[in-house]
Amino acid sequence: MTITELVGEIKKKKSFLCVGLDVDLTKTPSHLLNTEDPIFEFNKQIIDATHHLAVAYKPNTAFYEAYGIKGWQSLDKTINYINQNYPEIFTIADAKRGDIGNTSTMYAKAFFEDLNFDSVTVAPYMGSDSVEPFLAFKDKFTIMLALTSNKGGLDFQGKDLINNKPLYKEVIKTSLTWNNSENLMFVVGATKAEYFKGIREIAPNSFLLVPGVGAQGGSLEGVCEFGLNKENIGLLINSSRGIIYASKGEDFANAAQIEAQKLQAQMAKILADNNIA
Amino acid sequence: MTITELVGEIKKKKSFLCVGLDVDLTKTPSHLLNTEDPIFEFNKQIIDATHHLAVAYKPNTAFYEAYGIKGWQSLDKTINYINQNYPEIFTIADAKRGDIGNTSTMYAKAFFEDLNFDSVTVAPYMGSDSVEPFLAFKDKFTIMLALTSNKGGLDFQGKDLINNKPLYKEVIKTSLTWNNSENLMFVVGATKAEYFKGIREIAPNSFLLVPGVGAQGGSLEGVCEFGLNKENIGLLINSSRGIIYASKGEDFANAAQIEAQKLQAQMAKILADNNIA
Repeated sequence: MTITELVGEIKKKKSFLCVGLDVDLTKTPSHLLNTEDPIFEFNKQIIDATHHLAVAYKPNTAFYEAYGIKGWQSLDKTINYINQNYPEIFTIADAKRGDIGNTSTMYAKAFFEDLNFDSVTVAPYMGSDSVEPFLAFKDKFTIMLALTSNKGGLDFQGKDLINNKPLYKEVIKTSLTWNNSENLMFVVGATKAEYFKGIREIAPNSFLLVPGVGAQGGSLEGVCEFGLNKENIGLLINSSRGIIYASKGEDFANAAQIEAQKLQAQMAKILADNNIA
Repeated sequence: MTITELVGEIKKKKSFLCVGLDVDLTKTPSHLLNTEDPIFEFNKQIIDATHHLAVAYKPNTAFYEAYGIKGWQSLDKTINYINQNYPEIFTIADAKRGDIGNTSTMYAKAFFEDLNFDSVTVAPYMGSDSVEPFLAFKDKFTIMLALTSNKGGLDFQGKDLINNKPLYKEVIKTSLTWNNSENLMFVVGATKAEYFKGIREIAPNSFLLVPGVGAQGGSLEGVCEFGLNKENIGLLINSSRGIIYASKGEDFANAAQIEAQKLQAQMAKILADNNIA
């Protein structure tokens, strides 16, 4: 998928919602547990119920790895289902990978070629040659951790460097000089909307994947105030638990649709207020 | 496994060698390609030929993920083979994982419980709550990236903080204050032996997993001069390509044994010179 296509979908659906498919079988409806592949069955129903309200889906690979080989089969079926039925959807493998050059190439092939995801999340700690192998894939996107919304996020990301800039800003700035950096996006947590102001000064046009709205307490309006780019929107707002676990009953997919609809309506208003779509 | 058991094995074998099982089917002997599971068959023969010379094996998970579900089956068979036949071996899942708290717990369970590895490598970028879920497992070890030996390793790890300390030193120092930090080890590349001096000032007793000796140019003697701890040794020196790809012929396992033997002999001499074993 290209950025132009992604932006086109956002404008068409009036939504920049990403649904996180973090499936924990202790939280899913019990009636699915008797099916052959409960994780895939859950995902399939969530996707069918929300695909017109979301532009992206993001399975976190940890939730699949935790179920071993069966989990990988569920992930494989999920990405194939999306690609076959909703090819307009932007898919994100939330894998947070990163290794030395030739090893990163192996990961990139696994996610971009074998599983055919549009994008994958990566960690920056090992530097340029751990990320550039991902960036080398045309029309695929590498979403690098910059500022995360978890409790320990600032432990290192927030440390000031000798130039008085926090590490996460140095990470963003440096990575934009790497080969094929036009294929970079960044993970930026929604904990403090003000952070987006400083990030937009360094990366005015980059797409930002934003977790932490909703369950983790971030504000959609706040993020958009400082993070929205009027040309290409530049934001993908992720919600996982707030949507997929809206109900634990047989109505779970419908309940997910209602929650996704609420976020989509807020996004449509924000886009309209900014004369975007 | 406990540290005391690991140190006991090192003294018994007079070796602190870790063999990296990074299996790339384009580099393995062609006669194995006709077997049912060439990756496992390769690993099995390498392990049988070197287990008395090494104290640890380290499969890099990228090489298995790259082959999809079949790759995960090969990894599963490999770790089971080691655990059943050579339970005295310390096993390392080189996965470089790290995510928000509840997600890191999923990864920890996958590697420590389902696959039953003794240890797993993790990335520090997301801070305390991305690593502590791994540290919570008793008699399991979490090997955190500190200073890596790849080309881009210093891009961020080498950046000086406002206190004039490079990031990798801050990462080591801070992480030693986390809960259950007695279960921490660190990845420190062998590129410059002098780095080990500064690291030993911060982490005098921690085990360091050291890639980059051999193929990547690091010197075993140099690393030991500054990195060896006379009480518990505190080093695991990894070699991957130099051992497992010593020959591409039918004699590959024997060739691997010869290379492992060379490193073990050097290690035995270093231990003797330091009056350790």
